[in-house]
Amino acid sequence: MKAARIIKPKEPLRIEELNTPNPKGNQVLVRVKASGVCHSDIHLWEGGYAGPRDTFMRVEDRGVKFPLTPGHEIAGIVEKVGDDVSGISEGDEVLVYPWIGDGSCPACVVGEENLCDRPRSLGIFQDGGYAEYVLVPHQKYLINIKGLEPEQAASLACSALTAYTALKNSMVKAQELLVIVGAGGLGLIAVQLARALVGSNIVVIDLDDKRLDEARRLGADVVINAKSRDAVKEVKDISNGLGADAVIDFVNSSSTVVKDIDMLRKRGRLILVGLFGGAVELNLPLIPLRAFKIIGSYTGKYADLVELVALAKRGIVKSIVAKRFKLDEANDAITQLKEGKIIGRAIISP
Amino acid sequence: MKAARIIKPKEPLRIEELNTPNPKGNQVLVRVKASGVCHSDIHLWEGGYAGPRDTFMRVEDRGVKFPLTPGHEIAGIVEKVGDDVSGISEGDEVLVYPWIGDGSCPACVVGEENLCDRPRSLGIFQDGGYAEYVLVPHQKYLINIKGLEPEQAASLACSALTAYTALKNSMVKAQELLVIVGAGGLGLIAVQLARALVGSNIVVIDLDDKRLDEARRLGADVVINAKSRDAVKEVKDISNGLGADAVIDFVNSSSTVVKDIDMLRKRGRLILVGLFGGAVELNLPLIPLRAFKIIGSYTGKYADLVELVALAKRGIVKSIVAKRFKLDEANDAITQLKEGKIIGRAIISP
Amino acid sequence: MKAARIIKPKEPLRIEELNTPNPKGNQVLVRVKASGVCHSDIHLWEGGYAGPRDTFMRVEDRGVKFPLTPGHEIAGIVEKVGDDVSGISEGDEVLVYPWIGDGSCPACVVGEENLCDRPRSLGIFQDGGYAEYVLVPHQKYLINIKGLEPEQAASLACSALTAYTALKNSMVKAQELLVIVGAGGLGLIAVQLARALVGSNIVVIDLDDKRLDEARRLGADVVINAKSRDAVKEVKDISNGLGADAVIDFVNSSSTVVKDIDMLRKRGRLILVGLFGGAVELNLPLIPLRAFKIIGSYTGKYADLVELVALAKRGIVKSIVAKRFKLDEANDAITQLKEGKIIGRAIISP
Amino acid sequence: MKAARIIKPKEPLRIEELNTPNPKGNQVLVRVKASGVCHSDIHLWEGGYAGPRDTFMRVEDRGVKFPLTPGHEIAGIVEKVGDDVSGISEGDEVLVYPWIGDGSCPACVVGEENLCDRPRSLGIFQDGGYAEYVLVPHQKYLINIKGLEPEQAASLACSALTAYTALKNSMVKAQELLVIVGAGGLGLIAVQLARALVGSNIVVIDLDDKRLDEARRLGADVVINAKSRDAVKEVKDISNGLGADAVIDFVNSSSTVVKDIDMLRKRGRLILVGLFGGAVELNLPLIPLRAFKIIGSYTGKYADLVELVALAKRGIVKSIVAKRFKLDEANDAITQLKEGKIIGRAIISP
Repeated sequence: MKAARIIKPKEPLRIEELNTPNPKGNQVLVRVKASGVCHSDIHLWEGGYAGPRDTFMRVEDRGVKFPLTPGHEIAGIVEKVGDDVSGISEGDEVLVYPWIGDGSCPACVVGEENLCDRPRSLGIFQDGGYAEYVLVPHQKYLINIKGLEPEQAASLACSALTAYTALKNSMVKAQELLVIVGAGGLGLIAVQLARALVGSNIVVIDLDDKRLDEARRLGADVVINAKSRDAVKEVKDISNGLGADAVIDFVNSSSTVVKDIDMLRKRGRLILVGLFGGAVELNLPLIPLRAFKIIGSYTGKYADLVELVALAKRGIVKSIVAKRFKLDEANDAITQLKEGKIIGRAIISP
Repeated sequence: MKAARIIKPKEPLRIEELNTPNPKGNQVLVRVKASGVCHSDIHLWEGGYAGPRDTFMRVEDRGVKFPLTPGHEIAGIVEKVGDDVSGISEGDEVLVYPWIGDGSCPACVVGEENLCDRPRSLGIFQDGGYAEYVLVPHQKYLINIKGLEPEQAASLACSALTAYTALKNSMVKAQELLVIVGAGGLGLIAVQLARALVGSNIVVIDLDDKRLDEARRLGADVVINAKSRDAVKEVKDISNGLGADAVIDFVNSSSTVVKDIDMLRKRGRLILVGLFGGAVELNLPLIPLRAFKIIGSYTGKYADLVELVALAKRGIVKSIVAKRFKLDEANDAITQLKEGKIIGRAIISP
Repeated sequence: MKAARIIKPKEPLRIEELNTPNPKGNQVLVRVKASGVCHSDIHLWEGGYAGPRDTFMRVEDRGVKFPLTPGHEIAGIVEKVGDDVSGISEGDEVLVYPWIGDGSCPACVVGEENLCDRPRSLGIFQDGGYAEYVLVPHQKYLINIKGLEPEQAASLACSALTAYTALKNSMVKAQELLVIVGAGGLGLIAVQLARALVGSNIVVIDLDDKRLDEARRLGADVVINAKSRDAVKEVKDISNGLGADAVIDFVNSSSTVVKDIDMLRKRGRLILVGLFGGAVELNLPLIPLRAFKIIGSYTGKYADLVELVALAKRGIVKSIVAKRFKLDEANDAITQLKEGKIIGRAIISP
Repeated sequence: MKAARIIKPKEPLRIEELNTPNPKGNQVLVRVKASGVCHSDIHLWEGGYAGPRDTFMRVEDRGVKFPLTPGHEIAGIVEKVGDDVSGISEGDEVLVYPWIGDGSCPACVVGEENLCDRPRSLGIFQDGGYAEYVLVPHQKYLINIKGLEPEQAASLACSALTAYTALKNSMVKAQELLVIVGAGGLGLIAVQLARALVGSNIVVIDLDDKRLDEARRLGADVVINAKSRDAVKEVKDISNGLGADAVIDFVNSSSTVVKDIDMLRKRGRLILVGLFGGAVELNLPLIPLRAFKIIGSYTGKYADLVELVALAKRGIVKSIVAKRFKLDEANDAITQLKEGKIIGRAIISP
């Protein structure tokens, strides 16, 4: 089978011919129909993230090994199943839950495999979906998507799941004020989900008017371009000077987080999702005195992806497929995403 | 009636003769038997808290007005009730819930009056317990303590409640590792509660061997004197290099919080309680990548104080009354606490 | 002021002239604009409910005292406030939370005043909204409804709140199957809320095709007329023989509950809401073996009404005002509702 | 290897010589050190449970197939591991989580394998612990018990886990009144857990004074022998006429449940655990009017067993091993348990 692989950080992905895996036991081989191209694939390809003061957090220090086939947003068709598989058959249309854990760490015990101490996520710690086929270690990681387009379904596994989990972590209620920072792919899905499922007032902050227009179209009540306007002041103004009940920051950079904290209401929840990198100075007595919660949110658990697929079947969340690439064009996909040329989701269709 | 009042920050409290209030409607007049002396009374008397880089957060900017009778840990006997009071009678032994809100802000709506947007807490925003009598605005803020000594019960309303709420916020489970930073009054109560109610492994960190001995006596599994030992390394060592599932920091200073974060396990919860003051630099991508939660914990809600009184009646939590003062000696009480001369709880008994 | 009052069960309501109350302390006098006519007003007027085997549960045994002005779904305008009221002013458009408790029982302590041990609900235990004015004991029971029509808002306080709480009690999720039994006023609101907020598959069962058409229009996926079809079999058929994850029964009669249990999936939740009356035989070992939950749901708490008003402002829940009556016509309103002549909500507008 | 097997309901277990299984993939072979003898083993051996009006619910209709090796409370030592096993090694002392599901049903998705739609529990749907060895399908079902005696640990997997889950389902709080019906093995463990972890007032009801003495010794505040005393009246008397906040019924027979409901406070939770059999007539309007919750509780989930093992290591829960049997004496063990001759836990040690 053909696969697009990272051989070494920052070098072009190489299109290779690999042996097609043969599923054993509970394993399932899935023929890839669509594999989303995610911002974290760029970090993977660059080899890490920016930390405070010019430090760099290398993915290889977190257990990533190259060469690697990236791709963790995978939808496809069951090609072949292992001998012990039941409940899933050849030909089923499926979405792959990629955030696989070791099954026995404390996170796995409570169903949060995405936060496993020894993660084995597809496309990060083992080969993923930039390929004609992907080997899924157990049938339980597959969700039937009959009725959904694979291209639509693929990004549920990461970008929509991350937005959904962040929204849940925010614990925002109908009568509260929610601020979403960053109107990229994740932010726009968060707007849709918050509009449909919560009913709260939604403010979206970004630097790009086109994205903000899209946010408004999808249900934002107020949009603020932070280039030209004082976001903290405006959020305070529309909340009688009290601030936002919850802020979800899909950027998570030094400049956004300083403002997030300034606009947070007493009892406010700040959800940090993005991996832009950087650091802020945290005023310590403020945290208890104002009863703030700062919550890191990373992808999401399997049970929430099951919910999300049901919501997508209802049409409650829709991803915007911006551009399609062939497997041979994987380098183009990553480069264009990195250069900000893609609004919505890029998909690789082998 | 006699009261010890702060007239101006940093000036000695003045012992004054005030009119004894007359309860109307749902109000209740309580004769004070014991009023705890709390570290936050010192902050009140000093006029504020240290923020980052030599800034100072003034309590008057948070709505405090002087002159004020401090004292928010109040146990006593019902002296007189307003016309609309039912369920409470003269002579009842009661603990006062002091964290009173306006009853209609979002925090109050969900029963978290301690986090009200317009707080009216006794001893902070209105006159408290450093007096012969205290006027409680509604009978619902009183809890019957029959069977408990007023001196024992008083500190449940703040120090024990704060420790209990912090423990709840930590969401720590039986199989997890809990680190408690600071073995002062609150830390020692947290040890008792965690030992009795959770069953987790408990590590206590402090700079004073005498306090650490007391922590061990009350149930800590491991104690670490951070003066002489590397707390981060030791916590990692006893957790297979993974770190603490939850850290409750009753100090919350620059030097403690830096280490707290270093010793935190993936999915770890860091509960900040203390008001020591200061700032830390927060590495932003770390928060989502390790799914950390940083949670500010401030006093506690009424429903939790009701639970805590029930637990105290069972003997599950015991405060250690260190020293008794007369109302005339209120300045001595504050001075000795500030100078670190009091281990356990100081009580003013009018 | 004029009021329509129950003097004795089963006798016509009498239109009386009473003194207009004068608000003291935290009390608020509200000029009634709309007062919903609820099925439980009929039970009140009849003096009770049918229990098992021809027993009758008298409301007077539950603490109701006649004469009484009924009416617990009250929207209006603030006419006058007591001296201690803040945050609410004359002229404010408000909805009244009528499920008032004593403020100190265990239910009140956790904010569930609707389940108070010594309830003081307006229109049931003290005078309610079938009058020109209603005296509300504290400003905290008022919710600003600016932007909503009083006629639309009134029924949020009982019928919509009851439906919302029942839905929350069902803990139903997006990927699950929800059955709603009874497509009357409450059932139809439950359909709207489930459609908007949960996304689950919705089956509605009733005996009336017109109501079922309305249910389908509001978002039900499947409707079943139990007169002509086998509801249990159909629910099983659409769930691969497994049954419903949750059943909310707004009728709660012997004949409906027997079927509810038959169609319940392992781990299923059966929410009983209606007060139709009757009894069923419960197969005891089935409850643990199938891990069923049978949950009684009665009105709702204040915090949930605050959420619901926010949702109504978003247009997520709409009540259908069927018919308007003058205060003098209160007997007609009750009679027509009792005879099943009113589809939607009857409103008394003084 | 030797195993004691049910060949046909109500016939004596046969001691057979079977092939020792060879673990593949993620499977683990455990050498049995202790296998608890549970009341449900008697139901299994009798072929079913009594339903209402002389009906009989056959276990074979629920998917049980004979011949079968019973035994689901299994502690032992890892003998051999499959090729894909990691984190567990030969020689490890382990407790087996026996409530295995298919891993993909809705219950499994949220970690409640004990409530799987297609259960594969050890000792019920596949061969269990009345044998020299047991084959565990995946390493994730094993919990390290180093420091506990296998005989002590075995019954954690069912009787203690069931009691723990029932206690969690009761949501009982420190200030509430908990009634435990039945002071057998499970009831006594529930007393220990409630005493240690909750702090509530505990009333225990039984028909046997010896068991009630044991309940009092373990921490019950009040014990009532329902043979000679009016349990409903006494519970009401000690709760100001209000009743119990939660009742956990480990018997669950017609006669106990009628009283349970009579003694339940408004908002009360009734947890049904026992499989004694029978039926009661349920007064339907009472359920919503008093906001009762009736909750079926069946064994428990894996995450809770992990907690429970940690609590057992702390000494918070101790099972009372009453009698030891050899594998050859399996029929004696079942007969003596059935005849009520065993107080505490019978253990088979191969």
